[in-house]
Amino acid sequence: MATLKDVARESGLTVGTVSRVLNNRGYISDSAREKVDQAMKKLNYRPNEVARSLSKSTSSTIGVIVPHIRHPYFTEMISNLEYQAYKKGYKVLLFNSRNTVEKEREYIEMCTGNKVAGIILCSGTVPVEVFGQIGIPVVTIERFLDNGMAAVECDNRQGGILAAEKLISCGCRHLLHVGNIGGVFMPADMRTEGFREVCEREHVPFEELLTEEIQYDSMMYGDMLEEVLRKYPETDGMFVNSDVIAAQTLQVCRKLHIDVPERLKIIGFDDVFLSTLTTPQLTTIHQPIREMAEIALNLLHDSVSGKLVAKRTVLPVSLVERETT
Amino acid sequence: MATLKDVARESGLTVGTVSRVLNNRGYISDSAREKVDQAMKKLNYRPNEVARSLSKSTSSTIGVIVPHIRHPYFTEMISNLEYQAYKKGYKVLLFNSRNTVEKEREYIEMCTGNKVAGIILCSGTVPVEVFGQIGIPVVTIERFLDNGMAAVECDNRQGGILAAEKLISCGCRHLLHVGNIGGVFMPADMRTEGFREVCEREHVPFEELLTEEIQYDSMMYGDMLEEVLRKYPETDGMFVNSDVIAAQTLQVCRKLHIDVPERLKIIGFDDVFLSTLTTPQLTTIHQPIREMAEIALNLLHDSVSGKLVAKRTVLPVSLVERETT
Repeated sequence: MATLKDVARESGLTVGTVSRVLNNRGYISDSAREKVDQAMKKLNYRPNEVARSLSKSTSSTIGVIVPHIRHPYFTEMISNLEYQAYKKGYKVLLFNSRNTVEKEREYIEMCTGNKVAGIILCSGTVPVEVFGQIGIPVVTIERFLDNGMAAVECDNRQGGILAAEKLISCGCRHLLHVGNIGGVFMPADMRTEGFREVCEREHVPFEELLTEEIQYDSMMYGDMLEEVLRKYPETDGMFVNSDVIAAQTLQVCRKLHIDVPERLKIIGFDDVFLSTLTTPQLTTIHQPIREMAEIALNLLHDSVSGKLVAKRTVLPVSLVERETT
Repeated sequence: MATLKDVARESGLTVGTVSRVLNNRGYISDSAREKVDQAMKKLNYRPNEVARSLSKSTSSTIGVIVPHIRHPYFTEMISNLEYQAYKKGYKVLLFNSRNTVEKEREYIEMCTGNKVAGIILCSGTVPVEVFGQIGIPVVTIERFLDNGMAAVECDNRQGGILAAEKLISCGCRHLLHVGNIGGVFMPADMRTEGFREVCEREHVPFEELLTEEIQYDSMMYGDMLEEVLRKYPETDGMFVNSDVIAAQTLQVCRKLHIDVPERLKIIGFDDVFLSTLTTPQLTTIHQPIREMAEIALNLLHDSVSGKLVAKRTVLPVSLVERETT
């Protein structure tokens, strides 16, 4: 394989000049640039990016840490982050932390060892102090850590408000809300706050159910949903915290012979591909995942460049009406 | 940040000895190892993996190239590949090629520029000659290129056979098969071969439908499915090439008031998470995605280590009966 020296010899220039051209640094004449380009083509020379990132001390790679690749929300987020990274010339090192403290710590160490330019952290459980030590930019998505790191969120509270208002305007009077994981504080908790506010204002009673970490990991909510629908048979409106839960609610309704939307209306959250694949299709709260990914990449890019970036960016959500309301 | 020199000074050893310990190379006494470990801990020294990969000329990173992150099949494959890579000490650079020749070429160049240890290529369109030039191990999944590269596939033909036998044994006599993308040769084409074999042997007529690249990219098959079910209203058994298509078939059946499985039986392909989220749940052909990912990683690891590896590995599939048959 050709080396930098070969390119220098072929182009009749010094190694220093060739290096300046490759790194676009200092004064370079057009003719030198032209000679280097031709020599590189002739020798089929590829600049070794590992060597380049070493000398620049940062790389064009970013680390993306998610707790769950298979969860449809993170699938869409990863797909969008990869696309936005590609557009900005970054490559994506993907890490599945499986939401354990040890794995996330380990992955962050891998990122620092590999000199990534920055990290996008989607949810998770890493203690705040870990971040102070690593010295590379971090942007969080749906995970507000009040330690100066840039955070991107959707307006979860607004989502809860929209869901409650929709169900109540449809005439529902016995509401049920399947919320976040109990005991784990996340921005998504605000969905419940918004939902509660509207129900209290409108004097509509509602039952509230927390979920468990093990359900989040396995994405299996069927038994819990069947139990709660048997316990509260008068339920006529449900707002659940993900489209995965909403899809499984449809399955339980079929089993219990509850017609949707006639007898029970259901609103999910996320608006991922799955919400268009169920029968009937899901009414849901749209998270602007594409825009969240784009903004997260912009923030990371600006951080890497040393710019001051917004500490908190909150994007609006919207109600998407399909067939379950 | 501490350097290798600092570790050498702290441990009272030479830089060469410390380097041998870090790379586990040559003779190292237990006491030297112990001293280096203690010095590293005291100084909070992290070996810089970029520098290490440079000196070793390969890295502990592998490139995973998929045509479509959001497609449920690739989501599961990525999740499993990341896990298997983690277990073997590799990190995953994820690339979404969006199935265009240019992007895949570009990504392969990125991989070689970053000195990845190897590439796992899931489907795609890169011309064979590109691979001859790059000089790093490549393992393909569901994409047989007869050029000596290790290929991992599921037994697609067996899948078609199982689907046809099941539908015919259920009494279906008017079969419809929604197959692969027309004009693109892939191992998945063999599903159609197997299906056809059984239908011809049993003298059961069947209609065959190809899909289009644009449908694969958008994952929208609804209009096509509605058209074909209106054209062939006597259809009583369908075998479709993915669970995504099967989920959308259920939606069309609801619209056209066709009861599933009473009047029409449906068998999907892949057995991804989605197949358990539809109402009713999908009967489908199970691809052993977990095992395919594990074997692909093993093959890549062996290739990187210079071992001779199987050119072709074909895993069995199985019928998973749920609620659409």
